[in-house]
Amino acid sequence: MDFKATDIAAFLNGEVVGDGNVKVTNVSKIEEGKPGTLAFLANMKYENFIYSTGASVVLVNNSFIPKEKINTTLIKVNDAYEAFASLLDLYMQAKASVKKGIEQPSFIDETASVGKDIFIGAFSYIGKNSKIGNNSKLFPQVHIGENVTIGDDCILYAGVKIYDDCIIGDGCILQAGAVIGSDGFGFAPQKDGTYKKIPQIGNVILEDNVEVGANSTVDCGTMGSTILRKGCKIDNLVQIAHNCEIGENTVIAALSGLAGTTKIGNNCRIGGQVGFAGHLTVGDNVMIGAQSGVSKSLKSNQILLGSPTLSIKDAIKSITVYKNLPQLRDEVIQLQKEIKTIKKANN
Amino acid sequence: MDFKATDIAAFLNGEVVGDGNVKVTNVSKIEEGKPGTLAFLANMKYENFIYSTGASVVLVNNSFIPKEKINTTLIKVNDAYEAFASLLDLYMQAKASVKKGIEQPSFIDETASVGKDIFIGAFSYIGKNSKIGNNSKLFPQVHIGENVTIGDDCILYAGVKIYDDCIIGDGCILQAGAVIGSDGFGFAPQKDGTYKKIPQIGNVILEDNVEVGANSTVDCGTMGSTILRKGCKIDNLVQIAHNCEIGENTVIAALSGLAGTTKIGNNCRIGGQVGFAGHLTVGDNVMIGAQSGVSKSLKSNQILLGSPTLSIKDAIKSITVYKNLPQLRDEVIQLQKEIKTIKKANN
Amino acid sequence: MDFKATDIAAFLNGEVVGDGNVKVTNVSKIEEGKPGTLAFLANMKYENFIYSTGASVVLVNNSFIPKEKINTTLIKVNDAYEAFASLLDLYMQAKASVKKGIEQPSFIDETASVGKDIFIGAFSYIGKNSKIGNNSKLFPQVHIGENVTIGDDCILYAGVKIYDDCIIGDGCILQAGAVIGSDGFGFAPQKDGTYKKIPQIGNVILEDNVEVGANSTVDCGTMGSTILRKGCKIDNLVQIAHNCEIGENTVIAALSGLAGTTKIGNNCRIGGQVGFAGHLTVGDNVMIGAQSGVSKSLKSNQILLGSPTLSIKDAIKSITVYKNLPQLRDEVIQLQKEIKTIKKANN
Repeated sequence: MDFKATDIAAFLNGEVVGDGNVKVTNVSKIEEGKPGTLAFLANMKYENFIYSTGASVVLVNNSFIPKEKINTTLIKVNDAYEAFASLLDLYMQAKASVKKGIEQPSFIDETASVGKDIFIGAFSYIGKNSKIGNNSKLFPQVHIGENVTIGDDCILYAGVKIYDDCIIGDGCILQAGAVIGSDGFGFAPQKDGTYKKIPQIGNVILEDNVEVGANSTVDCGTMGSTILRKGCKIDNLVQIAHNCEIGENTVIAALSGLAGTTKIGNNCRIGGQVGFAGHLTVGDNVMIGAQSGVSKSLKSNQILLGSPTLSIKDAIKSITVYKNLPQLRDEVIQLQKEIKTIKKANN
Repeated sequence: MDFKATDIAAFLNGEVVGDGNVKVTNVSKIEEGKPGTLAFLANMKYENFIYSTGASVVLVNNSFIPKEKINTTLIKVNDAYEAFASLLDLYMQAKASVKKGIEQPSFIDETASVGKDIFIGAFSYIGKNSKIGNNSKLFPQVHIGENVTIGDDCILYAGVKIYDDCIIGDGCILQAGAVIGSDGFGFAPQKDGTYKKIPQIGNVILEDNVEVGANSTVDCGTMGSTILRKGCKIDNLVQIAHNCEIGENTVIAALSGLAGTTKIGNNCRIGGQVGFAGHLTVGDNVMIGAQSGVSKSLKSNQILLGSPTLSIKDAIKSITVYKNLPQLRDEVIQLQKEIKTIKKANN
Repeated sequence: MDFKATDIAAFLNGEVVGDGNVKVTNVSKIEEGKPGTLAFLANMKYENFIYSTGASVVLVNNSFIPKEKINTTLIKVNDAYEAFASLLDLYMQAKASVKKGIEQPSFIDETASVGKDIFIGAFSYIGKNSKIGNNSKLFPQVHIGENVTIGDDCILYAGVKIYDDCIIGDGCILQAGAVIGSDGFGFAPQKDGTYKKIPQIGNVILEDNVEVGANSTVDCGTMGSTILRKGCKIDNLVQIAHNCEIGENTVIAALSGLAGTTKIGNNCRIGGQVGFAGHLTVGDNVMIGAQSGVSKSLKSNQILLGSPTLSIKDAIKSITVYKNLPQLRDEVIQLQKEIKTIKKANN
């Protein structure tokens, strides 16, 4: 971007204080502001920085009254944070909208179809009978298998790989290297100790507005589907096994993993490095702390922590005692001695 | 696929009950059956579903006698589950056999050689002196370095990356994004606090029928080889460090990691998110529960759990007491009070 | 490589004992030596192997005096380990220097610039305004976004993906599948339970001599930068969230993860599968054992272990008691009985 302060003020319905001709090309935090950037001041905890910031333009609330001389251009608006966020949204949209067309070389099977206003980066591959919706962007080196449906307004970053038969809803974002639809980890033990692969013929369904993080993996159903419901958000390096189901607006942080056929409800928040055994059912509004290990099904509306999981209250109590276990043990030894003494005296 | 019920029955040596002309194009679970799909009923726990399933055809055991009216076409066979599995195998083989030839653009070095009936997807790369065996399938965007050998009947899904000098046996399956032969994590600390990279010049050997999951990583040996023995199966997002060795038919679940030079025996089963320290030796037939941390070598024929690992029996006992630690502590405090009282009374 | 023993001896300033015309094409460990390979003997623990090794040439210290007949060619040098290491370095340089030029098809935007002596593998992509320094090697299928800077002497292995605006210093090595600059995991909860994506407009800065492992992920700053300082080394499958900072020469092992805005100091060593909560500050020279969970900021110069982290000494004490918790519990029950008996007797 490359905007004059007066243009930004006009867009935001704001008032310029200072040099309206100064231009910005990027944004910054007020404490890290550099010339040519736009910052904002909403939380007065950061007020000090406005008197020394290098940012060329700072958005402030109408109510802001400087206590010292300010060297930067101000734009006064109703709500500086909201104004900044709306500028960012605009910036992201503008940036995304530049990506259009089909770069060469790319591979689009003749039976595949692509919508309007799409972007397909070089070295991307779209297999037989697959469909890409309107306004979706496939960055370079994306792989779309056969019979895949990608909805409208999706972004698939570089190197995303989608196996055959998967269905991706509208407005989904897949970060680089994410794998959707890899084979479930299913093997039938044979009498000679070897394993025979169980064919994995299901698919993955991502409903609308799902985000999957970089290098995360979502296995297809053995039969049927692995499903990520509307609006759920998966961080980087997360493993979701075959036939799992993640509820609407549920959030899972990095390096967590679900074993097969586990279902998590809506509006849950799962910390990083959490593990779930297979075939569990977790209710709605469950929060699970980082590094927890979930081996049993869980009812709705709980906050849990630990491996095994306890209520957050009990987990903290057990942790506290755990830290002092050596002292507890010494106290028990001391008690044993005292009782010995008492018994001797009593005899 | 697109098969008539009578054709399927003929293939399975089964008997059609109902409309033999109905066609199926996919399979389903009986409880999720849709028109045009084939399901099976083997476990009578699911009998209820056969009276309401939407599946067009259901495989049943010869011994099955319906209690209610059935609206779907039945195929009676000796063993419905076996019959279904054999159809799936057939389906997978048929599907795989369609992939043949070399898509363009791809990059095959003039010194590389490829066998018969191979598939090489677009944007795949085969480096100098590498060899691809007969009937192996490289999906798009696969990278094969130099002097790599890939055996017969392998499947390398999209974006698999294999470094120089690695050897992949027959019948191996590498899921999308798997990395084989990346540099081991070896650095020599220098006097100034920096690290000097130790050249990693070994390779990775995958013996026959090994499967490696999506986005898993197997480092090359520093010198010598990192070895995955015949028939071992590695899930998604697993890290196997330099010079490790995984025994035959050993299974490792997602997000587990081995530090360098650790050897695991045959027919072990390792749960998810398990960690192994370096330079350990683990025997045969060892089972290790999810999230365990293994810091010592382990003898054969054990079931272990926890970090540190204990026998499954001891681990469960310690976990049980751990959950009640706050109560145990209260009991010790109570004992201290009582002893104080007793001592006071005795004086 | 393909060298005669006499040539190697000349390069190392060493003395040949035995057949100087024997040729080697690879290196090996002395205990795994095969014909045509060069090994070394520095640690006399391995002396036995020199009498039976299959290696064609073995480097030994000048001081080495055989106790038995030796069938292989020896090269006597001042320091066999150092000599071997210098040969390996030479080998790696020779190998790397062969990779030169721009393979086709590749995609280099007309506004991008590349330095001298670079290698760009087939199917690699370099976006608008990006710059690749001198002597850097991009293996096939690498993705470089827009406005990216790659320094001199870097190696980006197959399928590395770098998002827009990231800055990579000199001498960095990125293993296959590593993702640099993916969106931070930031979402603003809305009143209806859904999440709104917070634009992630920052970047990632890798200073000089940073190594990032295979399939690891480093998110961009939400605003500002995620920074990996000079000489830090990140293993495979590590997650580094938005706005984190990793200090100089800090080493992080596989499957570890940092939540957002956490800063780790210089010369730290972090084990595998360690998790850090967000917004923490960790000092310099901190060592953290594998599978630890760090939920609080940490001062410099500590060795810690556990989840929650304790000093290594305290952690081991707590672990020891933990293993014997069932016994401790039995002892407490025994004490309760004895006190009951004493009280009864006293009454």
